[in-house]
Amino acid sequence: MKHYTSIHDIDNINYWIEEAKALKTNPLKHITLGKHKTLGLLFFNSSLRTRLSTQKAALNLGMDPIVMNVSGDAWGIEFGDGTVMNGNTAEHIKEAAAVVSQYCDIIAVRAFPTLADKIKDESEEVLKSFVKYASVPIVNMESATGHPLQGLTDAITISEHAKTARPKVVLSWAPHIKALPHAVANSFTQVMQRMEVDFVIANPEGYNLNPEITGDTPIIHNQHEAFKDADFVYVKNWSSYDNYGKVINTDSRWMITKEKLGQAKFMHCLPVRRNVIVDDAVLDSNSSLVIQQANNRTYAAQLVLKKLLENIK
Amino acid sequence: MKHYTSIHDIDNINYWIEEAKALKTNPLKHITLGKHKTLGLLFFNSSLRTRLSTQKAALNLGMDPIVMNVSGDAWGIEFGDGTVMNGNTAEHIKEAAAVVSQYCDIIAVRAFPTLADKIKDESEEVLKSFVKYASVPIVNMESATGHPLQGLTDAITISEHAKTARPKVVLSWAPHIKALPHAVANSFTQVMQRMEVDFVIANPEGYNLNPEITGDTPIIHNQHEAFKDADFVYVKNWSSYDNYGKVINTDSRWMITKEKLGQAKFMHCLPVRRNVIVDDAVLDSNSSLVIQQANNRTYAAQLVLKKLLENIK
Amino acid sequence: MKHYTSIHDIDNINYWIEEAKALKTNPLKHITLGKHKTLGLLFFNSSLRTRLSTQKAALNLGMDPIVMNVSGDAWGIEFGDGTVMNGNTAEHIKEAAAVVSQYCDIIAVRAFPTLADKIKDESEEVLKSFVKYASVPIVNMESATGHPLQGLTDAITISEHAKTARPKVVLSWAPHIKALPHAVANSFTQVMQRMEVDFVIANPEGYNLNPEITGDTPIIHNQHEAFKDADFVYVKNWSSYDNYGKVINTDSRWMITKEKLGQAKFMHCLPVRRNVIVDDAVLDSNSSLVIQQANNRTYAAQLVLKKLLENIK
Repeated sequence: MKHYTSIHDIDNINYWIEEAKALKTNPLKHITLGKHKTLGLLFFNSSLRTRLSTQKAALNLGMDPIVMNVSGDAWGIEFGDGTVMNGNTAEHIKEAAAVVSQYCDIIAVRAFPTLADKIKDESEEVLKSFVKYASVPIVNMESATGHPLQGLTDAITISEHAKTARPKVVLSWAPHIKALPHAVANSFTQVMQRMEVDFVIANPEGYNLNPEITGDTPIIHNQHEAFKDADFVYVKNWSSYDNYGKVINTDSRWMITKEKLGQAKFMHCLPVRRNVIVDDAVLDSNSSLVIQQANNRTYAAQLVLKKLLENIK
Repeated sequence: MKHYTSIHDIDNINYWIEEAKALKTNPLKHITLGKHKTLGLLFFNSSLRTRLSTQKAALNLGMDPIVMNVSGDAWGIEFGDGTVMNGNTAEHIKEAAAVVSQYCDIIAVRAFPTLADKIKDESEEVLKSFVKYASVPIVNMESATGHPLQGLTDAITISEHAKTARPKVVLSWAPHIKALPHAVANSFTQVMQRMEVDFVIANPEGYNLNPEITGDTPIIHNQHEAFKDADFVYVKNWSSYDNYGKVINTDSRWMITKEKLGQAKFMHCLPVRRNVIVDDAVLDSNSSLVIQQANNRTYAAQLVLKKLLENIK
Repeated sequence: MKHYTSIHDIDNINYWIEEAKALKTNPLKHITLGKHKTLGLLFFNSSLRTRLSTQKAALNLGMDPIVMNVSGDAWGIEFGDGTVMNGNTAEHIKEAAAVVSQYCDIIAVRAFPTLADKIKDESEEVLKSFVKYASVPIVNMESATGHPLQGLTDAITISEHAKTARPKVVLSWAPHIKALPHAVANSFTQVMQRMEVDFVIANPEGYNLNPEITGDTPIIHNQHEAFKDADFVYVKNWSSYDNYGKVINTDSRWMITKEKLGQAKFMHCLPVRRNVIVDDAVLDSNSSLVIQQANNRTYAAQLVLKKLLENIK
């Protein structure tokens, strides 16, 4: 593996899950692997879990993390090819990525979508430019269309809590007042499609995800029906894909309640808006796995960094 | 000690002072104590001394500090119980505190008061929420009503510079153009009440601190009288407590001058506005202990972190 | 060397270049030199290369870097002597510099010029105040009138790529839409004046740099003539010095093209505006040394920190 930019970079999800669980039981086992190596964490957007867990993962491997909020700390970055840069951007990604590669052994990048321009977002301009122009491995800390560190985390968490050989997993849309990206839902879909699970997606009409990603996964517009016999309900809001980036429905009847959930475990990538996405009673109960998920972010990131470091050596 | 949130968490101030002095003579003695442990420093507000000295203290114990400016780097945090989160806050403290606890072995928090809502400020919503919802020790890096790392620092500094068994210490209000918190004055009062000192407070009428904190400490409205035979004059502005958060007096006659100070040592937590709070001549003279105080911030923080780390192990 | 604030702090540029090259072949040779020592990096302005390369340099020496964006993270700093601080600044540099010296073994500072007040800028108020009031060594990470880490970097890079004993080096102005500082051009001029090179400066009329810095260096207003037989063309925009801080010319005929460059190597400190300062074809060709320059930033900073650390011990 040269980079970790999407779920497709995982060669065998079952092996990866086992290796992540092993790391979790002995996080400092590889403390010398990253010695004197730096991880550059470049944030174009806000972050709490990713910011902290990726640093923790790097520290567990003996690496030195260096954090930079690109927008505030450095210069406006230009991504266009051939642009006459007489506007607001002061540095081209060609230089920025090549330069950061001089100081960092691995570069991790977070860059959210515009949600205004589908073609631009799907081109993954920021992430792909780093892959193209950097000379070191790139880690996706959530891009316009994917959040593969979260997807890997979720696979680990489901594996840890599954009580049957083939659990039923539902990805359910839930209401939110703002237009949110599809990245988490996409990566969760992609990783579930590769696991031994019965996987369905529940969302209102008009909220189908990109069909190239959902593929053969059943999409059900009746939440009640979808949740039947579910073992895990993974909840996330996303804006419309067809009517790109628009909030066309904030139907509070799609909010997750204890009653709807039944015996299923509740999962969410966080941050989550309480009593909008999900009822307090769910989050405050043992049905919720959200904190366990957050904990696994460290080991997902650590596994990815470990594999990249091993490849560098 | 499970957390360090106020001066009340100090069991014996004299023992603590002696231990801090010992750390100061050999700061790296416990360099392995914090190895592979992370300190999360969460700032809801600006910081210079606290930011740097707490990191330095963590490094002296072998810890890995991770700094986050919560407002700019992460998400707006909700503290209300049962809130329908369809406004500006995106993450509830219940999740935030529990999540950060997955990555950090100790969490240090700075969150200033509103100075608009006394009940809310005195509820110490932010600090107490972290204590309640985090699963790791919490350190107060200045909350709405207290700054116990500063108070401990000041106790150490007075102990180092005292020339008599029972020095006279004055806490004096001084004028300032903006409404400032009571936190430093409160913690200083609380720690002085536990030391072998003659302690009085000097402030204009209308500026008495919270009587539950000042207790039996004499409050004198005549600065000249209060300063008589003082060994240490600790200066700080605070806004009115009775007329909560208001600036009801900026009387420049309360500014500290060399003449007023006499033989006493001048102390201040910094930052200090020159020629508003105190004359240049005081700060630029040997009477000032402000830089020595700042230096002791490291050892106060290091002592607190050491005690918390010992409790974790 | 007590501080590194300008090219004048280099005692022998040839020895320094050789030592930097040696560090580059074995960056971790002095990994214990900076152990348990902290480098405070204080940014009053944006930074990418300097931010990352100086941290990397510190890590290569075993130091602990602590980064602070002064404006956002801490308090407004007052530099005036005797000021009654009842305005927007909350902390005087006298305290700030002395306080940071309690926590950091070396302090590195970036503070750009106003470009509005020549006298103020040339007084180097921020940098000189740190030198005056700090009790530890100060490193200039670009001040109002100089960028000596960049100058040292450029000397190393030219030495590495020179094919003749006495190469011809041209510093050329190029057009830019915004008013930019003179710091990089000044330090490059100063370091070239001390090297075995034929050095000339090319700029339009009205753009001569400070004559006290350019001294005997030939200034040519015809770019074509200046570039004749050049081995290295170092490109940079700067605003007018005579008509201080003004953009009096954005003549695109001064943009660097492949044709103009001929056999010469292209150098720039970055960030660079593509197709404004220089044509894409130059940057995307082997003629460009900009990434190699960026790499050498690490070793220039490491050499400076090493010399300061050796002096502390």
